[in-house]
Amino acid sequence: MFLFNQSKSVLRLNELAEDPVDLTDDTLFTSKRVDSMISSALGLTLFYATERVSEITMQALSDLAQETQVIEKMQKMQSGEVINRIEGFPSEERKVLHTAMRDFFDHANEAAPAKEAAQMAYQELEKLTHLLTDLEAKGTFTDMVQVGIGGSDLGPRAVYYALKAYEKPGRRAHFFSNVDPDDGAGVLRGLDLSKTLFVVVSKSGSTLETNTNETFVREHLTKAGLDPKNHIIAVTGKGSPMDDPNRYLAAFYIWDFIGGRYSVTSMVGGVILAFVLGMDRFLEFLRGANAMDKLALQPDVKSNLPLLSALLSIWNRNFLGCATSAVIPYSQALCRFPAHLQQLNMESNGKRIDRQGKAVEFDTGPVIWGEPGTNGQHSFFQLIHQGTSVIPIDFIGFIENQYKDDVVFQGTTSQEKLLSNLFAQSLSLARGQKSDNPNQFFPGNRPNRIILAPRLDPYTLGLLLSYYENSVAFQGFIWNINSFDQEGVQLGKKLALQYIDLFAQKREQKPLDAKQFPLGQAYFRHISSLLS
Amino acid sequence: MFLFNQSKSVLRLNELAEDPVDLTDDTLFTSKRVDSMISSALGLTLFYATERVSEITMQALSDLAQETQVIEKMQKMQSGEVINRIEGFPSEERKVLHTAMRDFFDHANEAAPAKEAAQMAYQELEKLTHLLTDLEAKGTFTDMVQVGIGGSDLGPRAVYYALKAYEKPGRRAHFFSNVDPDDGAGVLRGLDLSKTLFVVVSKSGSTLETNTNETFVREHLTKAGLDPKNHIIAVTGKGSPMDDPNRYLAAFYIWDFIGGRYSVTSMVGGVILAFVLGMDRFLEFLRGANAMDKLALQPDVKSNLPLLSALLSIWNRNFLGCATSAVIPYSQALCRFPAHLQQLNMESNGKRIDRQGKAVEFDTGPVIWGEPGTNGQHSFFQLIHQGTSVIPIDFIGFIENQYKDDVVFQGTTSQEKLLSNLFAQSLSLARGQKSDNPNQFFPGNRPNRIILAPRLDPYTLGLLLSYYENSVAFQGFIWNINSFDQEGVQLGKKLALQYIDLFAQKREQKPLDAKQFPLGQAYFRHISSLLS
Repeated sequence: MFLFNQSKSVLRLNELAEDPVDLTDDTLFTSKRVDSMISSALGLTLFYATERVSEITMQALSDLAQETQVIEKMQKMQSGEVINRIEGFPSEERKVLHTAMRDFFDHANEAAPAKEAAQMAYQELEKLTHLLTDLEAKGTFTDMVQVGIGGSDLGPRAVYYALKAYEKPGRRAHFFSNVDPDDGAGVLRGLDLSKTLFVVVSKSGSTLETNTNETFVREHLTKAGLDPKNHIIAVTGKGSPMDDPNRYLAAFYIWDFIGGRYSVTSMVGGVILAFVLGMDRFLEFLRGANAMDKLALQPDVKSNLPLLSALLSIWNRNFLGCATSAVIPYSQALCRFPAHLQQLNMESNGKRIDRQGKAVEFDTGPVIWGEPGTNGQHSFFQLIHQGTSVIPIDFIGFIENQYKDDVVFQGTTSQEKLLSNLFAQSLSLARGQKSDNPNQFFPGNRPNRIILAPRLDPYTLGLLLSYYENSVAFQGFIWNINSFDQEGVQLGKKLALQYIDLFAQKREQKPLDAKQFPLGQAYFRHISSLLS
Repeated sequence: MFLFNQSKSVLRLNELAEDPVDLTDDTLFTSKRVDSMISSALGLTLFYATERVSEITMQALSDLAQETQVIEKMQKMQSGEVINRIEGFPSEERKVLHTAMRDFFDHANEAAPAKEAAQMAYQELEKLTHLLTDLEAKGTFTDMVQVGIGGSDLGPRAVYYALKAYEKPGRRAHFFSNVDPDDGAGVLRGLDLSKTLFVVVSKSGSTLETNTNETFVREHLTKAGLDPKNHIIAVTGKGSPMDDPNRYLAAFYIWDFIGGRYSVTSMVGGVILAFVLGMDRFLEFLRGANAMDKLALQPDVKSNLPLLSALLSIWNRNFLGCATSAVIPYSQALCRFPAHLQQLNMESNGKRIDRQGKAVEFDTGPVIWGEPGTNGQHSFFQLIHQGTSVIPIDFIGFIENQYKDDVVFQGTTSQEKLLSNLFAQSLSLARGQKSDNPNQFFPGNRPNRIILAPRLDPYTLGLLLSYYENSVAFQGFIWNINSFDQEGVQLGKKLALQYIDLFAQKREQKPLDAKQFPLGQAYFRHISSLLS
């Protein structure tokens, strides 16, 4: 059995980490280094000369990839082997086939489970095309509200904001996720319900927040004199409580082999994105994701961008000891993309046991966070430059803007200023600055990389989404953890139900039974007194 | 001179940290503990029994507060002493008087600089009242766009979303911050410019992003046949390039003793918030902030909520070694509040030198991040429960919702479900769960606290804002760092100007001089080739 921290390449990397490349060395940034640490594929370019790596480090990381058989594991994942499991313990025992949701283009995976999943996904796409054509013909609906939480919210929301520039005229999307009633009240307040469709998304059909929020929506529709059945679409598992043609305008299916955080290219994202952007653009988005999935199968580390990125992340996390990593898109349209990547990464790799159920003895997934640049520069970059913690950064940039609406001020466009800031931050974080004034001293050696694309269009966003999905999976493969379950969300859920039960008892004016709930009782007494 | 890590109380705390309270101990959560670790003031209640502290730890932290003379330092700050400085080196040498921006209520500070600042602030409020009355009478404008970045954006934006439920009918606020031209294009696309006012905010009047974006706005206004002078209000320093009555409808002043990240209660937030919420509500917000400022002067640690919170944060950061801390508001309206606190905290305390210019030998400000609950539970909580890093959490909750629009589903309201989840997460993170299935084992000992308020109204938000502002200041006082400058943003800015200059040369088709810019050149060549 493979043990990460006893593997040969890990021992070698530990040695190298004792004296990592010094990015503040004035002689380091030769054109040779910069040129050799650029990797391009599918129109994306990854610049990583500003990571604390040398060619020797890269070789050792490449050996790690080999030793951990990441390409074979990726192949297994994309082919539909049951990899979502913990050996020897009850676990989900599922395939992981989000890549099949977009495998309709070149070189489709030939393995039976992958093929079957792709066919099922394609069928849903066809159903969706019919529904959208119908809706288009009737012309009743202008707005669509996604009702879902976690993966049913973050991914579709991030993609919507990213591609809002491509919105169909007169169409708008909204999102209602939180069980906080103010979320729904705020969203619904601005809408003409007679022109609004709702997509309720829950794989199990029994997500408490989503069921509650669906009820909230149904009550509002009824109060407005509308029949909820004509306004609500379900996206759910076949046979779930939500798979009920009497209650929904239409139903689209998802399957247990699609994790919530990997579901944006399935119907979870498909219905609202195709409604608001058009099916052609949604397909372009899928085509981009699919192209990157194929690239992720490339054994050559240097051209396999998600693998290359995963290895650099492993280096920063396990060998340079960085507890967090920031994603900073120099693009306002990607304002919610870090929040999606936060879930994708932290829910996948925030694990403490390996695939054999043994507690790991090394660090797994870091905290992922971020905001767009240049905004971040005027916010938390102070700490990144001069704080006591080192925060690796994943920059995302685009050569062109989306709207083609720009201004020349003092001899350059805003887009040029944006790119200038992006590259300036990358270099200055790496290099630092000497100064006799201690407040103007910058220690440098803040590792970072840039992924640069021509423009943020549906295809490119598909590439980026899959780049991160596959990079997260690769990190999990290397750590030998299961990146596809989320047992850590269960405990809080269970305890919440006990509190909810207390509230229900109170509502029915039953005497509260302290013995039933010895621990929460002390708090509940306080809340109750505040409530009364 | 005080040295944090040689102080008596720090040595004592280091001893205590060797064996911190075990929150997974079944006998720990007695009613006595819970009750004694609740502190209430001004309607807010802080629950901290779920922090890894005992009464002994709290005593040692209280000694630390005493030893570091935090109350005296807070008094000096609020009285207008020049505390924004690094002794012995060129530095900003400024007073820090954001508290004066709201010191119009009871027990106003009597020190001359504070009094003077409050008078100046009050004058601006009166000017604003007149302008708003004029605008109201004319009735032309429905929308206002804030053009600013960093502190001129994050605070006002967070407050606007938090209080959107209190918006005046027919009024809306928008925000344009990023130098990414798609930000402006996206915001302006949805607006009727003839009914729109812009507030351009820059203390210096020379923030590159804001100047550029103002130009973008002026061009759009002119193209729409409108005179920019009738549509743009300036908020800036007296005598700045933006202090020009020929170019703006009105000008409001801010001063060098108001840091951007502390400026939301000044005219930086005042103009747009009073326009959209009404002056009465903005004043309520100020009244809340002011009340908390007074509380921050209380020597009794237990009732001084911002100090109590600061000490718990110091414990988690310096003694339990936590590199990040999450803020999780159980309130969708606070969706952007963590982003504001991120700047407030990280730009203030992400420092590596003390007030005497000496490099610190301990950790200062952690990474601050967060998203609303319950959403976060379906995203990154997996890592918080079962990851390899311990992430302290600062929960924020409210007893009532804002819109009074709720639904009963399965016997409880959404608001009750929301609160149930909040308290359930707090307890389950602390206590963990034993299990023979390693995937269902939760290590617990995840420290967290809850700040609970009756409802999110303007007054309460003022309390919360000042609670965090003062808590950040207290942490800085304890570490003996300067929380009020931001030298770390300069280096990237400087280098960006060099790149911008390269773009300008390229635009003028001048041959690029590689010698002028040896380092960025290698990258620039790549960008250039991508651009062409």
